[in-house]
Amino acid sequence: MTERFTPTPEDKFSFGLWTVGWQGRDPFGDATRAALDPVESVQRLAELGAYGVTFHDDDLIPFGSSDTERESHIKRFRQALDATGLVVPMATTNLFTHPVFKDGAFTANDRDIRRYALRKTLRNIDLAVELGAHTYVAWGGREGAESGAAKDVRVALDRMKEAFDLLGQYVTEQGYDLRFAVEPKPNEPRGDILLPTVGHALAFIERLERPELVGVNPETGHEQMAGLNFTHGIAQALWAGKLFHIDLNGQSGIKYDQDLRFGSGNLRDAFWLVDLLESAGYTGPRHFDFKPPRTEDMAGVWASAAGNMRNYLILKARSAAFRADPEVREALRAARLHDLARPTAEDGLAGLLADRTAFEDFDAEEAGERGMAFEHLDQLALDHLLGAR
Amino acid sequence: MTERFTPTPEDKFSFGLWTVGWQGRDPFGDATRAALDPVESVQRLAELGAYGVTFHDDDLIPFGSSDTERESHIKRFRQALDATGLVVPMATTNLFTHPVFKDGAFTANDRDIRRYALRKTLRNIDLAVELGAHTYVAWGGREGAESGAAKDVRVALDRMKEAFDLLGQYVTEQGYDLRFAVEPKPNEPRGDILLPTVGHALAFIERLERPELVGVNPETGHEQMAGLNFTHGIAQALWAGKLFHIDLNGQSGIKYDQDLRFGSGNLRDAFWLVDLLESAGYTGPRHFDFKPPRTEDMAGVWASAAGNMRNYLILKARSAAFRADPEVREALRAARLHDLARPTAEDGLAGLLADRTAFEDFDAEEAGERGMAFEHLDQLALDHLLGAR
Amino acid sequence: MTERFTPTPEDKFSFGLWTVGWQGRDPFGDATRAALDPVESVQRLAELGAYGVTFHDDDLIPFGSSDTERESHIKRFRQALDATGLVVPMATTNLFTHPVFKDGAFTANDRDIRRYALRKTLRNIDLAVELGAHTYVAWGGREGAESGAAKDVRVALDRMKEAFDLLGQYVTEQGYDLRFAVEPKPNEPRGDILLPTVGHALAFIERLERPELVGVNPETGHEQMAGLNFTHGIAQALWAGKLFHIDLNGQSGIKYDQDLRFGSGNLRDAFWLVDLLESAGYTGPRHFDFKPPRTEDMAGVWASAAGNMRNYLILKARSAAFRADPEVREALRAARLHDLARPTAEDGLAGLLADRTAFEDFDAEEAGERGMAFEHLDQLALDHLLGAR
Amino acid sequence: MTERFTPTPEDKFSFGLWTVGWQGRDPFGDATRAALDPVESVQRLAELGAYGVTFHDDDLIPFGSSDTERESHIKRFRQALDATGLVVPMATTNLFTHPVFKDGAFTANDRDIRRYALRKTLRNIDLAVELGAHTYVAWGGREGAESGAAKDVRVALDRMKEAFDLLGQYVTEQGYDLRFAVEPKPNEPRGDILLPTVGHALAFIERLERPELVGVNPETGHEQMAGLNFTHGIAQALWAGKLFHIDLNGQSGIKYDQDLRFGSGNLRDAFWLVDLLESAGYTGPRHFDFKPPRTEDMAGVWASAAGNMRNYLILKARSAAFRADPEVREALRAARLHDLARPTAEDGLAGLLADRTAFEDFDAEEAGERGMAFEHLDQLALDHLLGAR
Repeated sequence: MTERFTPTPEDKFSFGLWTVGWQGRDPFGDATRAALDPVESVQRLAELGAYGVTFHDDDLIPFGSSDTERESHIKRFRQALDATGLVVPMATTNLFTHPVFKDGAFTANDRDIRRYALRKTLRNIDLAVELGAHTYVAWGGREGAESGAAKDVRVALDRMKEAFDLLGQYVTEQGYDLRFAVEPKPNEPRGDILLPTVGHALAFIERLERPELVGVNPETGHEQMAGLNFTHGIAQALWAGKLFHIDLNGQSGIKYDQDLRFGSGNLRDAFWLVDLLESAGYTGPRHFDFKPPRTEDMAGVWASAAGNMRNYLILKARSAAFRADPEVREALRAARLHDLARPTAEDGLAGLLADRTAFEDFDAEEAGERGMAFEHLDQLALDHLLGAR
Repeated sequence: MTERFTPTPEDKFSFGLWTVGWQGRDPFGDATRAALDPVESVQRLAELGAYGVTFHDDDLIPFGSSDTERESHIKRFRQALDATGLVVPMATTNLFTHPVFKDGAFTANDRDIRRYALRKTLRNIDLAVELGAHTYVAWGGREGAESGAAKDVRVALDRMKEAFDLLGQYVTEQGYDLRFAVEPKPNEPRGDILLPTVGHALAFIERLERPELVGVNPETGHEQMAGLNFTHGIAQALWAGKLFHIDLNGQSGIKYDQDLRFGSGNLRDAFWLVDLLESAGYTGPRHFDFKPPRTEDMAGVWASAAGNMRNYLILKARSAAFRADPEVREALRAARLHDLARPTAEDGLAGLLADRTAFEDFDAEEAGERGMAFEHLDQLALDHLLGAR
Repeated sequence: MTERFTPTPEDKFSFGLWTVGWQGRDPFGDATRAALDPVESVQRLAELGAYGVTFHDDDLIPFGSSDTERESHIKRFRQALDATGLVVPMATTNLFTHPVFKDGAFTANDRDIRRYALRKTLRNIDLAVELGAHTYVAWGGREGAESGAAKDVRVALDRMKEAFDLLGQYVTEQGYDLRFAVEPKPNEPRGDILLPTVGHALAFIERLERPELVGVNPETGHEQMAGLNFTHGIAQALWAGKLFHIDLNGQSGIKYDQDLRFGSGNLRDAFWLVDLLESAGYTGPRHFDFKPPRTEDMAGVWASAAGNMRNYLILKARSAAFRADPEVREALRAARLHDLARPTAEDGLAGLLADRTAFEDFDAEEAGERGMAFEHLDQLALDHLLGAR
Repeated sequence: MTERFTPTPEDKFSFGLWTVGWQGRDPFGDATRAALDPVESVQRLAELGAYGVTFHDDDLIPFGSSDTERESHIKRFRQALDATGLVVPMATTNLFTHPVFKDGAFTANDRDIRRYALRKTLRNIDLAVELGAHTYVAWGGREGAESGAAKDVRVALDRMKEAFDLLGQYVTEQGYDLRFAVEPKPNEPRGDILLPTVGHALAFIERLERPELVGVNPETGHEQMAGLNFTHGIAQALWAGKLFHIDLNGQSGIKYDQDLRFGSGNLRDAFWLVDLLESAGYTGPRHFDFKPPRTEDMAGVWASAAGNMRNYLILKARSAAFRADPEVREALRAARLHDLARPTAEDGLAGLLADRTAFEDFDAEEAGERGMAFEHLDQLALDHLLGAR
């Protein structure tokens, strides 16, 4: 049984260098683990069955490195990729760790910090493309405020739009085959972050000069920090044609950002998410953006990394069995999912208005008594999730 | 001092019939107040200084009324409007109280319920226009699910789009001067509601056939039920040109929907909201969608209703004093709000890339040490809010 | 496999009459189901494999019934119990539905309402004892406030203590073998409820005249509405010897009170809860306080009721397999659970102070590097939960 | 007006060294401010009008200092205290920053870490007493878990009790005039922390060998991270005679621990809290446990520190005016607060049972119609808070 849940590159699992490389520094504690060489991360992730690795510029090339050091870091990394066959499907910019970004990057009140942030991003876009990435993630974790007058949000959104328009112009002019994925988050490290949810990010994108170049990179825990149903958010992103990338992890409800391994936290939602991604034919990487708890040593880090993939595969098998179960199909029919798929008015507005059965002769009392049979359906889902059928 | 805070119709305060008319039924208790005649509501609200009144179809015309009864209810209401000068700036449909809507209206799995919901809405749109409304609110409180398989969200969004496209077609064909305002809510009465936040609604609207006809009607408490900064959400709606209406009330954090009077709950955010609406030149109604607590008798209901308006006016005065204070202007400058208003790259992408001061010669350490002076600014705001300057 | 998860009375599953009998009235909607005869509930629950049924006075005897009607209701109910073998392990008082309790019962500002609430409770205690109950639950859902001056909390706690002291005196004087179980809840239907969590209730009990008569009745969703770990709360109640009863259901995070069937919502916590109850040797009823969603007809109600028990039994089997797995035992040892069970200082204070290895010669750096191996352990738990081992 | 809100030592305001000394390291960013010399903190806090300063052992004496260095740090600190007149009313232990505490201190699974933690605490208790402290705070921020099997909570509570019993024995044997104050927190930095709320801590204390030596040190933001009403929690702590110390700050709802300056976040609750502390005659320090946002330079740090005190004094003035207002007194009477203060049954159980007006002749319908007049009362409070009366 265990064999079934062993990952291979075909599963398209990817990890950020910053995930397994997290040293365990938190707001109340110092690092509990030594720094991890990106080359070692690449090797170990390949051994575990991953297919890809992703990075922030500063993960690979420490902030402040000279050009020579930079080249050396890139060279070693590239060699490790070549040796293992791991790809780099995505890269991103660190616009949050250095004090210079304490009030934001693209929307910092300081104009010269905004310019610096754009240049830092543009530089890493070149590297991302060089390394073969087709997606560039933008998490604006410092774009926000703790107090009301500190940020004029409408003006800040103008600056945010300006930034993405410039980035879009750049990749277009360069002829890069690269798309952007905005990663929303409601709060932490700022009191309130701009574009706090998948919805806000999707709406923002529509006001850009090149909306077709920009989608979203939703993260499980970020949406759940707002108490939102992650799977519903992903469904809306898919519906809008905007799920360009995804960050999978675990979160135990509305609290600080936990970045637990995938399968931790809201397990039922993890099941529905995998069910959605698999049935929607999502072909992008299954990217884990998690932090191995700081209680773990390096053995624990790799155990935790492996757990993400294993849990995805278990849930994928559970979803497949659920969808294939004849009793489930019958239950879906009883719950009238097929009826939802039918247009409400294929007869058009005029037809609807002329149809007396739709209103004048409609028996609301009778229709109100029809049971939806959702509890039976959900119990079947739970049985499958628990491996109890 | 009290005189300053007495509302007049020029303040554009409006109330739903269902607010002062709420009888106090909650999930654990029966009504504590008798039904209120809409005519009495109109009279009392006019006396208190309101300018407008809004309604769900069933607030005015009890569900199941005959056509004759319907006409009689409308006539009495219209007479009360004429007598008091109150206007009807907005109306909406009750698509949630009757059992027939237990699984939703525009996205109910049952197609005939969806058709009925559309017809019920179209019928009330005619009345809304007759009574002079220019905004039609759509709160899809029952559009959602408690369990994962019960609703295919992508398909449900297709149905939601179909519904709004049909409604848009109708008002266009009728030549109505009426726009729609979608009211988002994350949950309650459904476990998860579709279009859970202002952001999700804004994004959805962009996929409609007539996006120009549809905006949002954000409600204070609804965004705060997701832990979001309401003022930030309103700012993004304004930025997108989509703040078609607003529902003001109070909410004490992430919990059940409280609908407290405006000024209750998050008082600081209420201040920033009024500051934003007033400085952005929002000209729509200040609509209160609150519920006088069920501990109150009718005297308490009217005291509660009056409090909403009084609090808005106090906060408006506080905001005006804050913005006029020379020390505040200096503090805003110290916090570099003027610098945020300047484009990041009026020199264009080429200029930015050529500017060595933007990256190669940029001193990130020095820039990282610059203080933002936000705490001083926020203390000035708090001083003004508390009337302590 | 299904056979294993079929409940019998030995499993000690009980249900409130108000659970399967819930008609689906919510803050935004009318009843979707007809009233259910308590006798039918008893019969159906017995058929499903339950062992007990519980009630509020008004569930069994509608508010305002005459003495004759009362006797008739009780008689029919008793006959149904006799016919089915179902027992009544617990009863409670409805101190929240009628408008008279809108500001509370034992802590209502109105003294005559407090007296009435006590008399209503005392009357139902007699009936509870007559019907064989040994636990009397007290949920003070209306004891609280929406605004700051409306309730002097210290004074209200005096009144709450007075009420429980009187109740304790009564059962002592009557010689009843009955204990009380306080049910905490943070909010809803009041903005803030007194004794909001298991902790607050446990602390309150210690100030009573007869603390030995009073314990807690924690409800899954209520603790989760405060974002708390339910299993941790139950562990503290067990540690204090105060878990007199328990209400099991499901809740999807911090939001309105959902009362989903057990197994819904936080599935991982449900697993750990069953694991705790079973390993702690809890012998009381496994009482389900859930509400079948209002989307369901009566078939759905019974499916939902059955699901609670089935899920408990599946989780019980998963927990047993987890605890019996040799690899788990090894993992627990690696995580040093056995070391936690050893006293910190069996050598006493003097021994600890004299032990140089405990401080002066302690190598904090080395100790800080020890991995806790929690991720491996948790993955084993998840494997068991998912039936994947 | 400003003069009224200038603090003096009589106001008993105190600050932790770690508050103004916070360098701005957060989970996503490096320090934005240089380390601050404790001596400078003492001087500046004295200039601002504070009366006391508090510390963790490692704030004053960097972890790993030699005995000589330790003495030197203490000497300089003591000189600064003498020079400024600042007192040390409270001290505490850092049992969370060093990696050795990654799985807890008093309840770490590792026994030798538990022993080390106790010794580290005992050592700093000696220093605390030397410096004149009468309160010793214990925040067990690392006592908890991220996953279910990692901590046996009942066993961990045994270890927690063992630790406090040993500490109590120590101060008793030493003849110290020192009491302990347990500081609860629901989560962060652990997924779930033991003793998550004021209630859980109060309950735990009752099981100790010397409960009289132990009370609570509630922190505003910590209770609000669980969505709880902080003022209600403080009221229960006062009611139990257990408010030994208090940590004041600001928090914007359920999210990561923000530690904003007092007056930020939930302003209405801050008002009710000050109103409670002042009317209850609380005589302990008003201790600010806040973090000046990392956007601030040192000027901003001191502005932020000053704001805490100013806001307390403004709210104190507002509360005094509220309580002195004759219309408020009348409104309190209309809301029947005086009736809540009257015992429910001064006639005893027998009297209550014999009183037919309490039940048989009680008119529940009439009593249910009585309005509580809470909205008028709350509007008066808001008027006072906003300085609008």
